[in-house]
Amino acid sequence: MSIKNRGGRSKNGPVDTVCGQIIMENLFESSDSVRTTKPLQYAEQVVFDRPHPLEHGGMLAEIVVVYETYGTLDERRDNAVLICHALSGDSHVAAHDAEDDPGWWEIMVGPGKPIDTDRYFVICPNCLGGCRGTTGPDSIDPTSGKRYGMAFPNITIGDIVEVQRMLIDHLGIDRLLAVVGGSLGGLMTLEWSIRFPDRLCGAVPIATGPHLTSQALAFDIVARNAIMSDPRFENGQYHDKGVAPSTGLAIARMLGHITYLSFESMRKKFDADRNSGRSLDTRFETKFSVGSYLAYQGDKFVERFDANSYLTLSMAMDQYDLGATKKALAGSMRRSMCRWLVLSYTTDWLFPAFLSRELVDALLDGDKRLSYCNVECDCGHDAFLLPNSFAVYGKIIKYFLRNLADEYMSGDPAVSASGIRREATLLATLEQEFAAKPERIDYKRIMELIPPGAKVLDLGCGKGGLLARLRLRGHKRVVGIEQDEKYVLRAVGRGLDVIQADLNLGLANFFDKQFDFVVLSKTLQTVLDVEFILDEMLRVGTRCIVSFPNLGYREHRRRLSEEGRAPRADFHKERLWYNTKDVRFLTIADFEEFCTEKGLRIHQRISLDTEAGHSVENDPNLNADTAIMVLSR
Amino acid sequence: MSIKNRGGRSKNGPVDTVCGQIIMENLFESSDSVRTTKPLQYAEQVVFDRPHPLEHGGMLAEIVVVYETYGTLDERRDNAVLICHALSGDSHVAAHDAEDDPGWWEIMVGPGKPIDTDRYFVICPNCLGGCRGTTGPDSIDPTSGKRYGMAFPNITIGDIVEVQRMLIDHLGIDRLLAVVGGSLGGLMTLEWSIRFPDRLCGAVPIATGPHLTSQALAFDIVARNAIMSDPRFENGQYHDKGVAPSTGLAIARMLGHITYLSFESMRKKFDADRNSGRSLDTRFETKFSVGSYLAYQGDKFVERFDANSYLTLSMAMDQYDLGATKKALAGSMRRSMCRWLVLSYTTDWLFPAFLSRELVDALLDGDKRLSYCNVECDCGHDAFLLPNSFAVYGKIIKYFLRNLADEYMSGDPAVSASGIRREATLLATLEQEFAAKPERIDYKRIMELIPPGAKVLDLGCGKGGLLARLRLRGHKRVVGIEQDEKYVLRAVGRGLDVIQADLNLGLANFFDKQFDFVVLSKTLQTVLDVEFILDEMLRVGTRCIVSFPNLGYREHRRRLSEEGRAPRADFHKERLWYNTKDVRFLTIADFEEFCTEKGLRIHQRISLDTEAGHSVENDPNLNADTAIMVLSR
Repeated sequence: MSIKNRGGRSKNGPVDTVCGQIIMENLFESSDSVRTTKPLQYAEQVVFDRPHPLEHGGMLAEIVVVYETYGTLDERRDNAVLICHALSGDSHVAAHDAEDDPGWWEIMVGPGKPIDTDRYFVICPNCLGGCRGTTGPDSIDPTSGKRYGMAFPNITIGDIVEVQRMLIDHLGIDRLLAVVGGSLGGLMTLEWSIRFPDRLCGAVPIATGPHLTSQALAFDIVARNAIMSDPRFENGQYHDKGVAPSTGLAIARMLGHITYLSFESMRKKFDADRNSGRSLDTRFETKFSVGSYLAYQGDKFVERFDANSYLTLSMAMDQYDLGATKKALAGSMRRSMCRWLVLSYTTDWLFPAFLSRELVDALLDGDKRLSYCNVECDCGHDAFLLPNSFAVYGKIIKYFLRNLADEYMSGDPAVSASGIRREATLLATLEQEFAAKPERIDYKRIMELIPPGAKVLDLGCGKGGLLARLRLRGHKRVVGIEQDEKYVLRAVGRGLDVIQADLNLGLANFFDKQFDFVVLSKTLQTVLDVEFILDEMLRVGTRCIVSFPNLGYREHRRRLSEEGRAPRADFHKERLWYNTKDVRFLTIADFEEFCTEKGLRIHQRISLDTEAGHSVENDPNLNADTAIMVLSR
Repeated sequence: MSIKNRGGRSKNGPVDTVCGQIIMENLFESSDSVRTTKPLQYAEQVVFDRPHPLEHGGMLAEIVVVYETYGTLDERRDNAVLICHALSGDSHVAAHDAEDDPGWWEIMVGPGKPIDTDRYFVICPNCLGGCRGTTGPDSIDPTSGKRYGMAFPNITIGDIVEVQRMLIDHLGIDRLLAVVGGSLGGLMTLEWSIRFPDRLCGAVPIATGPHLTSQALAFDIVARNAIMSDPRFENGQYHDKGVAPSTGLAIARMLGHITYLSFESMRKKFDADRNSGRSLDTRFETKFSVGSYLAYQGDKFVERFDANSYLTLSMAMDQYDLGATKKALAGSMRRSMCRWLVLSYTTDWLFPAFLSRELVDALLDGDKRLSYCNVECDCGHDAFLLPNSFAVYGKIIKYFLRNLADEYMSGDPAVSASGIRREATLLATLEQEFAAKPERIDYKRIMELIPPGAKVLDLGCGKGGLLARLRLRGHKRVVGIEQDEKYVLRAVGRGLDVIQADLNLGLANFFDKQFDFVVLSKTLQTVLDVEFILDEMLRVGTRCIVSFPNLGYREHRRRLSEEGRAPRADFHKERLWYNTKDVRFLTIADFEEFCTEKGLRIHQRISLDTEAGHSVENDPNLNADTAIMVLSR
């Protein structure tokens, strides 16, 4: 491949560049009469000067890619993280030094930050079809010498990702440690995972989905209608006429902006001074505070963004669909080979959590390794750019990248010097952590029940105590389900794959007999629909292990019959009848009867006196405070 | 007041009309080159020909009101129901006969339907500012002889309601049985209740709120920006120039239309054939199924609606605010004197349920009589016009109107002949119902604990068994809280005021000591946070009555200590440990200790053996299966 590469003004570009022919004089400073984009001081560019066919037909005679990089590429070239930007983003993801302007993801990228530029080599290109340097509708078509305008071909997310892959090839990187992107960038992340499955170790799609909802699609259509019906759109050739569809584009932006926020964030921003419009020099309504804000956002946007680029990228987004049905989507995702961290935000309604769940379900259907967290945040879609719940999503991304590094980065001592722990280090840390704690007899017995190497799903896994022990013992495929965000975070921090989900909704996303063992350890008593959960466990696991506190334990009996008092829940600890999480109370005899009635086979019974720290053989229903049973149907 | 009244072509107008001067030749058939509205065959009109000052200043030289009526006004003129239409509605709420076109709320209004035109006299006027006959921006200003256009003054919901009141006066109606309206019509309903509190017996605001969310406001602003920045808007005087801002209005409508639907309804409508655009003769994008649909809706709308009317009504809606704070809103609602039925829909995000809850909370703060139901429906804002959950919302409106009729309509025998039951009839029905059932000893004892006339709140009231008994005994103020929609429906059917709410979220909407008694009857054991609920009860009630099953009952003790089995929940009935709704298990001794620890005073203890049907005096913790306690702090 012939590549012309022109170095930008980067201070720390780690890759040698070949200066090529300068094609556009004012690449970074638009000469457009309307837009006044700021120069991207540290951007580099590469020019791929041979014709490039596109997925939906059509051809681009050459492709310029503008990108920025941060940090240093390791000698083994295995620490590269590709960041994909959203609709209105660009290559400037973060500041390069103290004098540089902040980037659009300053919070996430930099030395010591979750995407740590002291450890990782970060690459952020402006995407194909964009308007911040990379070839897009306002670039000059070298075959005609004129701007593409509406003649710019219909591109797909696949085309965008192909161009990113060309850049990665150019940088001499075989396999990316991770691809990370939110919103439109999330679609690119998904596409990377299935288009070039062996070119990335991990994927982090954020606030995105396998397709848009029909609602989000509808908003995009209205936005495009607003742009294209602006009389100054001039059928896309507005540049030639020295005008711009700035009314239509501003309306599109206003509309988009509403979808990036949430009820709650809008309430906080606008309700208090609802009727106090700001006085702005704008053609739009400024009567209400929210109207002034939108007018300002709309007016500002048209100064920095090209209408045709907006149309091109929003159409690429709208056409993206990894599968309309559950089956089709699972089929698409089956090609992926990487480890996954899927993130959504509770109040995002542009890419609602249910879309991320569709993706999670499809990945589970393909038995992929993944963690998922629906991050609690009241800021809507924009949450992934904001500090509000950064303590959670920043940290989980940090942990996930560290897990990838532990697993996939070379053990070369020169590399370890970069501060990245090895898998062995992680395991040693776990070992230390557990050694410092008193042995839990119930974990120990459950471990004994699970043969080495078995695939295990742990329901209500908490911080991952059991799963981490299994990993230490060498199990490759252990997965947890946990509802509590902070436990999910802790478990991912321990190197585990954990899916945030409400057990009470079942395991519909898992296929039959996906695991050798499904474990419900000290959780049965907190589950509302016991029958349903057990049915699901027995479907998904070849065997199930259930442990629960035994109401028949002599101390409970004594307390009720002699003292007339309710048993204290949770193994006599401080929790009482009115504030325990336990909602189901059963004896070993109750459970055995239940199994008989429902036709469940009990393969093994283990009865424990956990306070005394030993097994119970004699009349377990009276003498054991905890029961462990291995079941199948 | 001088009124010129011109009869329309109504077949059954019950009020004599005086033919006045004809002001516009083609009132019902617009001569507008763009709009081709269908004639409203049965509409009548009245002309108020003296100058009418408006709330925000400005004046209308005369006001024409077009309206339709259904059914017969009783001699005592006490069976009138006013229906307020939404943004794009008109006076044609239902068909007048078999040949007539269906109306916009055909499902709701007609003989035998929830708003039963065999019983009620239904009035539906086109609202001020509209474009279907009533004075609005496309009417001729009699002072200039030209259309108002943008010169039409800024009107408020108050102005709209003032004009409706003039119509009601004109029809000789002192007090409406009810005002009913959804969306924008819901705002009018709210305004009626506080502007003319003694002119209505009941209010039914549906899918509405005390103000818009900032999100909904923002969508309206973008829609107005689209209309006003259409070059053919011509600063509002497009009629004079023979053009119309049909692009801007169509975009406004598309946007509005998205907000009327839900994720789920859009998924059902559009996901299956997402990429199959229809071929339409339109200037808009038709690539996707949803795009074709929106283009069609947009194009169709501009044929029947006037852009200035859209601006006028959406601005009236956006400016409406009954109070930005909880306190201000409660202050506004304090003026209302009517009985309330507030309805929201679970997937409505234009007027989300939380807005209805704000209203409900404000009404509760003023100790108003109300029922509230958040109707389960997946169709979004449009739900109130659709059949999907009509079985619930249609029926609850029917019941509520019947309750109003029972309470407020005259006992004149001629009137009862119309089939409306009297309050006495309703009570007799309840009496019969209860007589046919075995006496419930726990109800009986709780009834004995409550002095005649006390104000009672029943938490988890179910179908209202206790509350109906209290009403029978003559209590005027009894209120229930219930989460289950079908029980709410049943309770309203029994003439009760019931608020649909999740007890576990507390009673924040009630003020301190609002009730003489707060009752939690056989519900304590199903509540997750016992302490929180009791705190709330003790705040809201002077006294609280709690009844619960006693785990210390001898049969439970025997079962656990002798058989080693968990007690059967719910008084030995069929529910077992794994499928009961009970999640808290306590003995009388536990509860007494709890009260001591928390500083609660127990005024009375009643212990029952409900199976034997008598009170227990000897060792209740052992011999009673049920305890009833009266508490205060």
